Amino acid sequence: MNRALSLAELLQGVADRGRRMIGRVRGGDGIAAGLTMQQLCERLVSSRGEVSGVAYAGAIITRWRQSDAAARLAFLDMLLARFGSDHAQVAAAIDAYARDPSDMSASLLHAATEPARQDLFRRINLAPGGVETLVRMREDLLPRLALRPDLAVVDRDFIHLLSSWFNRGFLTLRRIDWSTPASILEKIIRDEAVHEIHNWDDLRRRLQPEDRCCYAFFHPQLPEEPLIFVEVALTRGIPSTIAELLREERPVLPAEEATTAVFYSISNCQRGLRGISFGNFLIKQVVEDLHRDLPGLVDFMTLSPVPGFAAWVGGDSADVEGAKEARAIATTPGWIDDEAACARMEALMPALAARYFLLARDDGGRVIDPVARFHLGNGAQLERINPLGDRSPRGIGTALGLMVNYRYRPEDIETNHERYFASHEVVAVPSIRSLLPRTGAKRPRLPSARRGAKSEHKE
Amino acid sequence: MNRALSLAELLQGVADRGRRMIGRVRGGDGIAAGLTMQQLCERLVSSRGEVSGVAYAGAIITRWRQSDAAARLAFLDMLLARFGSDHAQVAAAIDAYARDPSDMSASLLHAATEPARQDLFRRINLAPGGVETLVRMREDLLPRLALRPDLAVVDRDFIHLLSSWFNRGFLTLRRIDWSTPASILEKIIRDEAVHEIHNWDDLRRRLQPEDRCCYAFFHPQLPEEPLIFVEVALTRGIPSTIAELLREERPVLPAEEATTAVFYSISNCQRGLRGISFGNFLIKQVVEDLHRDLPGLVDFMTLSPVPGFAAWVGGDSADVEGAKEARAIATTPGWIDDEAACARMEALMPALAARYFLLARDDGGRVIDPVARFHLGNGAQLERINPLGDRSPRGIGTALGLMVNYRYRPEDIETNHERYFASHEVVAVPSIRSLLPRTGAKRPRLPSARRGAKSEHKE
Amino acid sequence: MNRALSLAELLQGVADRGRRMIGRVRGGDGIAAGLTMQQLCERLVSSRGEVSGVAYAGAIITRWRQSDAAARLAFLDMLLARFGSDHAQVAAAIDAYARDPSDMSASLLHAATEPARQDLFRRINLAPGGVETLVRMREDLLPRLALRPDLAVVDRDFIHLLSSWFNRGFLTLRRIDWSTPASILEKIIRDEAVHEIHNWDDLRRRLQPEDRCCYAFFHPQLPEEPLIFVEVALTRGIPSTIAELLREERPVLPAEEATTAVFYSISNCQRGLRGISFGNFLIKQVVEDLHRDLPGLVDFMTLSPVPGFAAWVGGDSADVEGAKEARAIATTPGWIDDEAACARMEALMPALAARYFLLARDDGGRVIDPVARFHLGNGAQLERINPLGDRSPRGIGTALGLMVNYRYRPEDIETNHERYFASHEVVAVPSIRSLLPRTGAKRPRLPSARRGAKSEHKE
Amino acid sequence: MNRALSLAELLQGVADRGRRMIGRVRGGDGIAAGLTMQQLCERLVSSRGEVSGVAYAGAIITRWRQSDAAARLAFLDMLLARFGSDHAQVAAAIDAYARDPSDMSASLLHAATEPARQDLFRRINLAPGGVETLVRMREDLLPRLALRPDLAVVDRDFIHLLSSWFNRGFLTLRRIDWSTPASILEKIIRDEAVHEIHNWDDLRRRLQPEDRCCYAFFHPQLPEEPLIFVEVALTRGIPSTIAELLREERPVLPAEEATTAVFYSISNCQRGLRGISFGNFLIKQVVEDLHRDLPGLVDFMTLSPVPGFAAWVGGDSADVEGAKEARAIATTPGWIDDEAACARMEALMPALAARYFLLARDDGGRVIDPVARFHLGNGAQLERINPLGDRSPRGIGTALGLMVNYRYRPEDIETNHERYFASHEVVAVPSIRSLLPRTGAKRPRLPSARRGAKSEHKE
Repeated sequence: MNRALSLAELLQGVADRGRRMIGRVRGGDGIAAGLTMQQLCERLVSSRGEVSGVAYAGAIITRWRQSDAAARLAFLDMLLARFGSDHAQVAAAIDAYARDPSDMSASLLHAATEPARQDLFRRINLAPGGVETLVRMREDLLPRLALRPDLAVVDRDFIHLLSSWFNRGFLTLRRIDWSTPASILEKIIRDEAVHEIHNWDDLRRRLQPEDRCCYAFFHPQLPEEPLIFVEVALTRGIPSTIAELLREERPVLPAEEATTAVFYSISNCQRGLRGISFGNFLIKQVVEDLHRDLPGLVDFMTLSPVPGFAAWVGGDSADVEGAKEARAIATTPGWIDDEAACARMEALMPALAARYFLLARDDGGRVIDPVARFHLGNGAQLERINPLGDRSPRGIGTALGLMVNYRYRPEDIETNHERYFASHEVVAVPSIRSLLPRTGAKRPRLPSARRGAKSEHKE
Repeated sequence: MNRALSLAELLQGVADRGRRMIGRVRGGDGIAAGLTMQQLCERLVSSRGEVSGVAYAGAIITRWRQSDAAARLAFLDMLLARFGSDHAQVAAAIDAYARDPSDMSASLLHAATEPARQDLFRRINLAPGGVETLVRMREDLLPRLALRPDLAVVDRDFIHLLSSWFNRGFLTLRRIDWSTPASILEKIIRDEAVHEIHNWDDLRRRLQPEDRCCYAFFHPQLPEEPLIFVEVALTRGIPSTIAELLREERPVLPAEEATTAVFYSISNCQRGLRGISFGNFLIKQVVEDLHRDLPGLVDFMTLSPVPGFAAWVGGDSADVEGAKEARAIATTPGWIDDEAACARMEALMPALAARYFLLARDDGGRVIDPVARFHLGNGAQLERINPLGDRSPRGIGTALGLMVNYRYRPEDIETNHERYFASHEVVAVPSIRSLLPRTGAKRPRLPSARRGAKSEHKE
Repeated sequence: MNRALSLAELLQGVADRGRRMIGRVRGGDGIAAGLTMQQLCERLVSSRGEVSGVAYAGAIITRWRQSDAAARLAFLDMLLARFGSDHAQVAAAIDAYARDPSDMSASLLHAATEPARQDLFRRINLAPGGVETLVRMREDLLPRLALRPDLAVVDRDFIHLLSSWFNRGFLTLRRIDWSTPASILEKIIRDEAVHEIHNWDDLRRRLQPEDRCCYAFFHPQLPEEPLIFVEVALTRGIPSTIAELLREERPVLPAEEATTAVFYSISNCQRGLRGISFGNFLIKQVVEDLHRDLPGLVDFMTLSPVPGFAAWVGGDSADVEGAKEARAIATTPGWIDDEAACARMEALMPALAARYFLLARDDGGRVIDPVARFHLGNGAQLERINPLGDRSPRGIGTALGLMVNYRYRPEDIETNHERYFASHEVVAVPSIRSLLPRTGAKRPRLPSARRGAKSEHKE
Repeated sequence: MNRALSLAELLQGVADRGRRMIGRVRGGDGIAAGLTMQQLCERLVSSRGEVSGVAYAGAIITRWRQSDAAARLAFLDMLLARFGSDHAQVAAAIDAYARDPSDMSASLLHAATEPARQDLFRRINLAPGGVETLVRMREDLLPRLALRPDLAVVDRDFIHLLSSWFNRGFLTLRRIDWSTPASILEKIIRDEAVHEIHNWDDLRRRLQPEDRCCYAFFHPQLPEEPLIFVEVALTRGIPSTIAELLREERPVLPAEEATTAVFYSISNCQRGLRGISFGNFLIKQVVEDLHRDLPGLVDFMTLSPVPGFAAWVGGDSADVEGAKEARAIATTPGWIDDEAACARMEALMPALAARYFLLARDDGGRVIDPVARFHLGNGAQLERINPLGDRSPRGIGTALGLMVNYRYRPEDIETNHERYFASHEVVAVPSIRSLLPRTGAKRPRLPSARRGAKSEHKE
């Protein structure tokens, strides 16, 4: 006679409430009846005591969810035209500041220049589903920016509010495993961006064995929506190919025997949160948690793609030794199935890769590879080069099969990170630095990574 | 920095503990080292203070799990040979009873006759995973009974203990939905016994829309193992074919607009609990819960298979009007695709079905159909006959396509149930009773089902 | 062998993590070692990739918690002096706006004028305990404002951020009952501001009987800190004295027989959130939830104190009929124990109270009574006047014993609320309006409350 | 708008369901209407399909709860008179066994001799609250046994069933802390049997500081009823007096600095489960959990009362050296406040205590002290003698102030336990054994406890 309490109910019952609210709207809009979207927004912003605010906010959310693309564009246009800054108010505050340029008058000027949109957005969150709807609204806005650059000023308000609300302090790390609700798991399948999850069996192979795990950040208001997740393999030794991690039949390693945690895939799930970064916190936190739960783990590594490598080899690096030959091989169809070509490629790649990571820079003076920028910026060091680590068409197409390992040493993360941002120094192990040409002039002083006994390897 | 608390951990962490224990055994059996399975069992039963009992029980569980079929048979043989009754003790207790045949001496005789197996089984439960292992042990035993009828005495002890431990009062009803852990959902896919669930998408169609739901019983010691589950469709009106419930594309009915809850599939999940009935409690409880949560529901129906019908038509019912013709059609290959044959079958079936349910009996005088026995025994009434309700090969093969609806009227359940067991009366609506031949002699007095205004229908 | 999972762990483990962090700081500050509070704050604000931000934020939180009053004042001074606006940046942005006064330049000006404090505050939330610490920091700031009005500009930044983060959409309503963790209950005892809870037994009497309940708002980051709570009695009929609700020995009413929910105490718990209002949402939500769970409830009432009444009678209302006599009685020591004095007071009070609520206004033209402003502003109506409803010293001292009932009619809440804010109209039942003097000139047109059959009462 | 999910609801909602059921009974007994308690029990036992069983069981539970002492005795009498063994059936089964004394016929005889009560009890558990009611029924029965020894046969059936259902495998260990629901904490206050908890503040001092903890066993069907609990202090070094653990003002030790876990109080909560032992499992499990969570803990100790000591000194031990003097002091009123007397007592006690534990035995040859039997039987060893460890009136009265420490060495628990039960050997450290008189003849060979470096101490 016990009540059937579904696990979803533990997830704060948000969806349930959402349904209740929609159910109510089915039966009529209440005080929102007969009002246009703009009127609803105006009433919401002007409502004083907020008692009716919940109803207006709920009506706005429901209407927006039911809107088609054209109505959503009209909504954005309205946000742009009607909920911007009050220029008279701005002018008055500037005058006041000019008369008395104090911190208080600057603070008042700050308040006077706040676009009405920010208040509107905050009030939309009075109703259930508010945060999620704002994320979806920005998801709708972002792809329009190319054609409608004037909407950028609206996006600024979304960014401001969502950055504040999706602050690290509000996020919860949860383990994703085979006991996770299917409603969440289907989003993991859908959003995996690096090594596609083909079906539920493939997913299970990545979650259920004790030498595989997955972690995601969640926000309390979106309990069934992972924000970002990382997939981890527990191994003995550092893997050099993705195939060895993902193959169907393999012996499972008892978790307590593992020495190495390999982060082999990191994916963002919310397009509406583009530019609001979680990845750095995620890796740092997962390293900490794994370290605590499995004291046997001594190495924290990635096995990462190198998405900019093929283009670099094929392009500006023309004069680099070996690049020409690599290009010739790479443009021969089917080279990956030709043993001799592969052997040659494997021989050429380390020196090319060392140059790509350590010397090559983009126009802004930055490391070219976006994945490298992410991990190096997070405080990792470049640990190993794995030619032909990814033989999938995508791996060949974007990186001539190259993969690399970045290593996270908990004790170095913060100093590596600070160094990277201070000087764009790429921290790499000596064995990689030694691959650079010996001619002094071209070789900058490069920071040397600390080498622990555990990280020794031959290449 | 919040800890990643997986939902599975809320499920009492049993699996986790199991793992911990296995992990320990990897590292050596401790006090169990070097002992045979029989010695372990003997030590477990003789251990006085139970402190070492947990270790012995854990070792027995681990060993048994790692055993192959032959070792498991040897284990059963040992249970039979070494852990039966102590006949000297039985004889002494019989003597004592003979001298003073009181309730106390009967109680002492009861204790004296308890096979040692029962105590052994109870003590196996000292260690984590005990209950589940006992269920698996019986799962291993049951199929052997045909060749080894002498093991029946061992089975009696399993039945006694598992009946006591899987008592209704210990079971929890939980809703199964798309937020349920995947580890549970995969068992729903695996164990659906009536209308196969083809894949995860098929499963989602049965769980996620608001007009579909599913409930299962769980035992606190097996938190990830459903014991029995029922799938329910919420509809307006009583469905007559399974196809209309399971088809992929269909409009979803808002739950609060539904008038009818249709139980269209009930499956047991634990072979090791065969004969320990939950189904009756499950339906009764789900009816109560749905009734409370969706007051708009007025009809509680099944859409049920009739697994014994084809055999009955093909067999002993030879002399019944229409049976011969039905047999002729049924033995024509491909008849289900022949419109005329189908029309004829639809015409013949109602009278045949009425006879099958209301008059035909097996050698023990019972209703022939096992599904009918289940629902009628639970207090349902026979509500409607649906010729060609299931055109699947299985539906055609076992029931010539026939399906029926049983109706659960909350207010009649208990009296129908009592009547059925008192007199084997089949409660059916008048429209079904009227299908019987009018010749008085052959027609017994049949109980008439109450008809509510809501249950009116034409056939 | 199951793991001991404390209920607190379900509360997101925040405290636990906090401890872990403090533990770490015990062992040394890591990268924060040797830095002053100001240096920590500067590093935190300037850290680019946020990886080291968590460590700086954690160190700031720990240091602040360990600070004494003087150090906390120094911290505020530093916030004032060092983390205000960048006036050069403000001036440049004003120039840019002057050249092109567009929405975009206004938005850039808005960004340029943001005091550095806001960014600092947001980043403090990178570490566990951030939100709570910010609330405590404001708790420390508020009482200093009287002597240090220059700190108001700092308070503006706290208000801005906390308003955004304690937005209704982030709050969770939870029932407080006898199964609530003691760590939360002790805060209910401590923070009850209207009718003191004397001890745990007194608390139990307000939570455990089925005709008593209590609800509180929580924020996900402060899972053990109620923000505001309301105590409710379920009754048949409208109570007119607080004593009848709080007395120790009384028959308990079965919850489903109750017709009336009486909100008899509302208390705020977080001084650091002063001015950020939750009360209106709380009552509205509790009305909705009770309405859903106990359909028998038809009246939603308060039994409220009238804290401004005694001062009003004693003061500006000098010329009002009956006031002089009431003053005379009130200044007689021990009048409350004098039956004749009480009877006289009971006779005088209704007319005085009607005048107090309906006609008297403060200098700003507002209703005088703060509790009245709260409930009327939330959409309630004045329902009944209860002379000598509270005979406690406090009740006598502040209100001559007067209590009133405000009624929340779910269908009128929003319109009453809008009316109140549009015109400061006090909605009262006719029986109260009729207590006003009949002389036309002094009597404004007053809105009449709707009267349901259920709300009939005699006075 | 989130739903208020009380923590209690996570506790399986049993109470809630119980209320629902009671609510239903208020409105009429349904099929139970008009039946006597005996008729209800008969119907419940004879109901075949169990569908109506839930209703009968619910009615029995409700009636019994509402019964007064006389009605409860009548209920027991009915259980005795009407639900015992079926002697005709017993006789037939004895005959069958006599003809064929096989295991199967013994098993059938076992079934035939089962008193009807056992089936009745199992079926009472069909309804919510069944297990708890059976525990309460036994609680009612036990004190009657002295006057009504004939009820012992009824008690045997309670014991049989409750032993099976409260099997270790079904129990969950939960930490009790200041975040535990008040409804559970009040039971901790009520049931503490060793060192009284005076009020909620006293309780808090035992739960909240990080160097104090408490663990309890729970059964899934009684989620708000602790079965047994143990209070633990984390210390550096072994405490010799209870006062140092319980005093109000004391510095709190950071948990990770503790080296010793001191079990200073163990209390049973359910009188209805008397004789069904959990204590041994509890200590073993808590040792394991603490060991895992706080690796710094190396010593697991009790600080235990010696409830049989004063009586032993005062009685049969008359001829033992020092006993006479101790008796003389103990019978001097106020000796505990006389420094000289205390000093003398402290000098006398070690040798007396050593004799009490190591040599003295009761008529059954057992160690006299019940607390000693408990801990020694669980595999602990006698570690230290603390004269005047408990100066409370109770401590003086029962033990002349004596307390002792028993040590649990995880690696010795099982062998100590086996030794104790094999030979009643008391394992004690050498420093205690050396306190025995040196005269060889009187001194048996005593087992020596292993001494770790950590356990060294002077006395």
